[in-house]
Amino acid sequence: MLHVASCEQAKELLNLKFGNRYVGKEQIALADVVNRVLAQSIVAKEDVPGFDRSTVDGFAVHAADTFGSSESIPALLRNIGEVTMGKSCELKCERGECVAIPTGGQLPQDADAVVMMEVTEDYGDGLVGITKPVGPGQNVIYRHDDVSFGEEIYSCGKRLKTTDIGALAALGVTEVLVSKRPIVGILSTGDEVVPFDVTPRIGQVRDINSVLLSASVTRTGALPRRYGICSDDDDMLQERISAMARECDVIFLSGGSSVGAKDALKRSVEALGEVYLHGIAVKPGKPTLFGEVNGKPLIGFPGHPAAVYFIYDLFADPLLRGMMGEIITLPPPCYKAKLTNTIPSNHGRQEYIAVSLTTEEGLLTADPLMSKSGLITQFTRADGYIEVPRDCEGFSEGDWVNVIAL
Amino acid sequence: MLHVASCEQAKELLNLKFGNRYVGKEQIALADVVNRVLAQSIVAKEDVPGFDRSTVDGFAVHAADTFGSSESIPALLRNIGEVTMGKSCELKCERGECVAIPTGGQLPQDADAVVMMEVTEDYGDGLVGITKPVGPGQNVIYRHDDVSFGEEIYSCGKRLKTTDIGALAALGVTEVLVSKRPIVGILSTGDEVVPFDVTPRIGQVRDINSVLLSASVTRTGALPRRYGICSDDDDMLQERISAMARECDVIFLSGGSSVGAKDALKRSVEALGEVYLHGIAVKPGKPTLFGEVNGKPLIGFPGHPAAVYFIYDLFADPLLRGMMGEIITLPPPCYKAKLTNTIPSNHGRQEYIAVSLTTEEGLLTADPLMSKSGLITQFTRADGYIEVPRDCEGFSEGDWVNVIAL
Repeated sequence: MLHVASCEQAKELLNLKFGNRYVGKEQIALADVVNRVLAQSIVAKEDVPGFDRSTVDGFAVHAADTFGSSESIPALLRNIGEVTMGKSCELKCERGECVAIPTGGQLPQDADAVVMMEVTEDYGDGLVGITKPVGPGQNVIYRHDDVSFGEEIYSCGKRLKTTDIGALAALGVTEVLVSKRPIVGILSTGDEVVPFDVTPRIGQVRDINSVLLSASVTRTGALPRRYGICSDDDDMLQERISAMARECDVIFLSGGSSVGAKDALKRSVEALGEVYLHGIAVKPGKPTLFGEVNGKPLIGFPGHPAAVYFIYDLFADPLLRGMMGEIITLPPPCYKAKLTNTIPSNHGRQEYIAVSLTTEEGLLTADPLMSKSGLITQFTRADGYIEVPRDCEGFSEGDWVNVIAL
Repeated sequence: MLHVASCEQAKELLNLKFGNRYVGKEQIALADVVNRVLAQSIVAKEDVPGFDRSTVDGFAVHAADTFGSSESIPALLRNIGEVTMGKSCELKCERGECVAIPTGGQLPQDADAVVMMEVTEDYGDGLVGITKPVGPGQNVIYRHDDVSFGEEIYSCGKRLKTTDIGALAALGVTEVLVSKRPIVGILSTGDEVVPFDVTPRIGQVRDINSVLLSASVTRTGALPRRYGICSDDDDMLQERISAMARECDVIFLSGGSSVGAKDALKRSVEALGEVYLHGIAVKPGKPTLFGEVNGKPLIGFPGHPAAVYFIYDLFADPLLRGMMGEIITLPPPCYKAKLTNTIPSNHGRQEYIAVSLTTEEGLLTADPLMSKSGLITQFTRADGYIEVPRDCEGFSEGDWVNVIAL
C-alpha cells in the first residue's frame, strides 16, 4: 500500500484501519451538549405536551355548539369561568357552555375546540356570542401530539445542534451521554521551522501548521495537544512520537517540506509502528502519510499550510468524527457561484482550489486563488474552495460551481 | 411605530436604533481568535516569504545555462555545494555552476531558477547533467511574492476563521485587538414556566427558551447570562429587567404565550424605557417586541421556541454581530433541495418553514415540517429552513428551494 493512492483508496484505507477506534463515552450537562456527538439514543420519558393545550387566546367550547354560527346569527354560549395559566383546570365544559382560555392553557374537560377571541363577542350576563364555527380539535394541541412516551427522539451518533438543546430541554433531559473528544497530539517537524512568535532568520520559516491544526481540531470538536517543534533527527523524532502515542488518541505530524525531512519522518514512523500509505493523488497534499504507532492512528501532513488545510478537511476531520462515532448524513452546505476564470484539467489528481467569493446583485462569483505558493494570500482572500474531481476536464469561465465554505 | 411592521421595516428599525452600539475592544492571544471579530486592520510587518525560496527539491541554476538542454544533450553544470534547510545560504552561483537545494531552501546568490531533481543526473566528479530547460523564476517563490511589508491583510470588522489563524501565525502576529463579546441577559417570563429540569405539573411548561437563547448567543460569539424565570408580575418583571439593564449590554426576554403575559411584558418595558415595535409580519414570531431600557437594546421574543429560533436568526444574531462591529459580506451557505410537498402562500407575512433533508443518489430532497405546534418534532427532525418571502405565492412540490442549515 505504499504506492500513491487515489483519494477514494486513501479514504477506504482510513476506514479499514481506523473505522473502529472509538474513544469512549462521558456524561455531561445539557448546557454543554452543542457540537457533541450522542453516545446514546434519546427516548422520550414523557408525553409532550403533557396535557391538551390551547394554541390561541379565546374560549374553549364544544365544536358542535358553534356549527352554523355567523356574524348575523352568533351561537350563544354561557361562560362558566376561565382557565388560569400554569394551573391545572378543574372546570368541566358542558354543551352550551364555554370557558375563557389563554394560549397554552389546559383545555377544560369535555371541551373539544377553542374559538379565537377575535370571533367572539361579550354580551354581558355571562353570555358569549361566537360568530364563526370551529371544527373539533381546532386550535388545540393534544397530549403527546408532539412526542409520545417511549418514542426515540435522537439516535446514537448524532452531532447536536442549537435546536437540539431546545428539544432536549423540552423533554427535561438534564444530562446526556456523549462520546469523549479524542486527544490529538500535534507536532511540527523540520530543521527550518521556528515557533510562530519568533522572528525567523534567513532560511527559517514560522510554525504555521501546528497553529492551524489546533484550530482545525477544535472546530471538529476534538482536543488538540501541542508537542512543539522537532528537528529532522531520527532519535528525537522517535522519542517525541512515542510520547504522543502514549499520551494521545491520535497523532498528527506536519512534515518538513524537503525530501530529507519527509524521509526522516517516514523512517521514524516505520521504526515505531507501521506506515500504511505515503502519497495521495491530490493537489495540494501529495506527500501525505497514514500510519499507526502503539495502536494510535497517525497522519503525517504535508509541509505547506494550504495542503494541511485540505488534507485535514478531506481525511483528518472524518477520522476524528469516526472516532467519536458520529454518523454523518448530510454533506456541508455550499455556495453556488459563477467562475471568473478557467480552471484547467488536473491530470488525474483530485484538486482543491481556494476561491474568494463576491456578491453582485444577488449573484455570487468565485475567483480562483491560483497563486504559486502564496500561502497568506490564499488564506486571507479565500472564502471557500472548490473540488475538481480526478477525471474532470477542469471548469470554464462562467461555469457554475459548488463552493464549500472555509 | 407600534403597528405590525414588515421584516424589512423591523430590520431598518433595529439598524436605526442600535446600529451604533459598539461594545468596545480587547487584546487577546492568537490561539483564541477563531470566531472573534477584528477591531483593527492587520498590516504585514514583514515580507513573506522573507527570502527567495525554492519550491522543489533540485538544483539552483542560472536558467540561461539550461536553455536547449534535453535528454540526449544535457547541460553540464558544476555542483559547488548545497543549501542547508533552516540556514542562510552563503554560496554564490556563477554561470556554469549549480547548487543542490531542498524545497524551502534559500536560493543562492545570482541563481534565478531551480531545476527539479527528477530532470537531473549525477555524472560524478561534481558534474550534474540537466535534461530539461527551466525559465527564469521557475520553481522559485521570491521574497514578498506572497505579502509585502505594509500591505493590509485584513480589514477591521472581519470575523476570523480557522484559515485566518494560519495566515496570522505566518505573519508572526501573537496578539490581536478584537471586539468584546456583548453580555446578553436572558430572562424567561410566564406564570406557567418552570425550569427545564423540573417536572411540570398540569398547566405548566418547561423553560426551553432560555436554554435555546443561551446556545444561540454562544453560537453568535456573544456571552449569555441567564436571569432565570420571572412570573407575569409587573413589579417583579421591572425589577429583573432593571438589573439586566445595569449588568448587561443587551436584554433578551422570552414572553409568556398568553395575551396577558405579553401585556405584562410590554407594560414593564414601557415603564422602564421605550417600546419601539410590537408585532412583526413574520410567521412564526409575530408577537416580537423591540425596545430599549437604560440605553440597552431589548428584544422580547415570542413564547414558542420555534419562533424564538427564527426571530433570533433574523434579528438578534445581526444585532449582536453589529454590536461587535462585524462586517458581513456573504450570506450563509445553502443546501439546494427539491421540495417533497407543496407550501401554500403565506398571505402577506414572511414565513420560515423548518425542513428535514434526505440525500437520494446525490440529490437532496426537503420535507417541510408543518406540524401544528409540534415543537420537538420540528426541532429534532429539522436540518434547515426555507424562507417564503412576503409576496411569494408559495412553492410547489418538486420546486428547487434554498435551505439554510440550522
